[in-house]
Amino acid sequence: MEKTQSAKLIFDGNIFKVTQDTAQINGKCYSRDIVHHHGGVGILVIQKNKILLVKQFRYAIQETTFEIPAGKLEKDEDPYTCGLRELEEESGYTSPKLKPLCTMYSTPGFCNEQIHLYWTNQIEKVENPLPMDEDENIEIQWISLENALSMIELGKIKDAKTIIALQYAALHPTTLLK
Amino acid sequence: MEKTQSAKLIFDGNIFKVTQDTAQINGKCYSRDIVHHHGGVGILVIQKNKILLVKQFRYAIQETTFEIPAGKLEKDEDPYTCGLRELEEESGYTSPKLKPLCTMYSTPGFCNEQIHLYWTNQIEKVENPLPMDEDENIEIQWISLENALSMIELGKIKDAKTIIALQYAALHPTTLLK
Repeated sequence: MEKTQSAKLIFDGNIFKVTQDTAQINGKCYSRDIVHHHGGVGILVIQKNKILLVKQFRYAIQETTFEIPAGKLEKDEDPYTCGLRELEEESGYTSPKLKPLCTMYSTPGFCNEQIHLYWTNQIEKVENPLPMDEDENIEIQWISLENALSMIELGKIKDAKTIIALQYAALHPTTLLK
Repeated sequence: MEKTQSAKLIFDGNIFKVTQDTAQINGKCYSRDIVHHHGGVGILVIQKNKILLVKQFRYAIQETTFEIPAGKLEKDEDPYTCGLRELEEESGYTSPKLKPLCTMYSTPGFCNEQIHLYWTNQIEKVENPLPMDEDENIEIQWISLENALSMIELGKIKDAKTIIALQYAALHPTTLLK
């Protein structure tokens, strides 16, 4: 157990905050730099053995990625509500039922971001969907589970939440791929 | 494609840096706050159908976690070398052969951390292993793959790299679990 002795706010941005903390472990003090994030939601959508992926340029890594639809939680927002909103914004679809897949920490060594993953095989087109964020440029693609798993092996899919969701689909074929 | 117009260093810590960038997209400018990290390595160790997990308190999330042995790369360090060092420091084992599992981005929306995952079923005890970092307090545990997969379902394992490694083992039983 590490007790917080002090926490200094270093940066307070739109997506995350940074604090520089002093933690006490067995009577000694150590520095802990922490990224604080409200967390996020990702949705695995499956239809006829195909997975809905969004293709987008990610500035932080300077690469174009394939990811499941996802987005960040507003402060205190319900993950389920956030999941439906992000699905609609990014893909134009909604779902009558998202089912929990798992909850994951992206990188718990220095960041508290927690991502709630859901899956669904029931979707409906929304007539006038919520618009994407102005600075998002997203293209949707339907890719077979088999191809998506190959894309992990080839290093073409590297996003952690997306790998987790695709592996989960491969491990639960009778539930998800009917 | 988003072109960097400017990048301002906000924070330069031991584990990560933060920059506040201005990116140009189709002629318009947007702010991008980015966490820069040298990346890391994680190692899935399997022996007699059991997985080596490290139990430790993670200050960032204020929880005790079960994770595969892992650690961060020094600047420009070779991931394979880092993997062997971290394995030895955290578990007291070394391996004659780590095999690549996959490479993942923890959270590419705002952070460039890339984690290189390896697996091995060949390990050897090191007589006088490298010591743990002074501020690490790690306990090793051997858990069957079956139990580890249940721990994901129960929310007792939530670390992204660990979930990916365990699901990979479940998807490749003939290769890994012999």
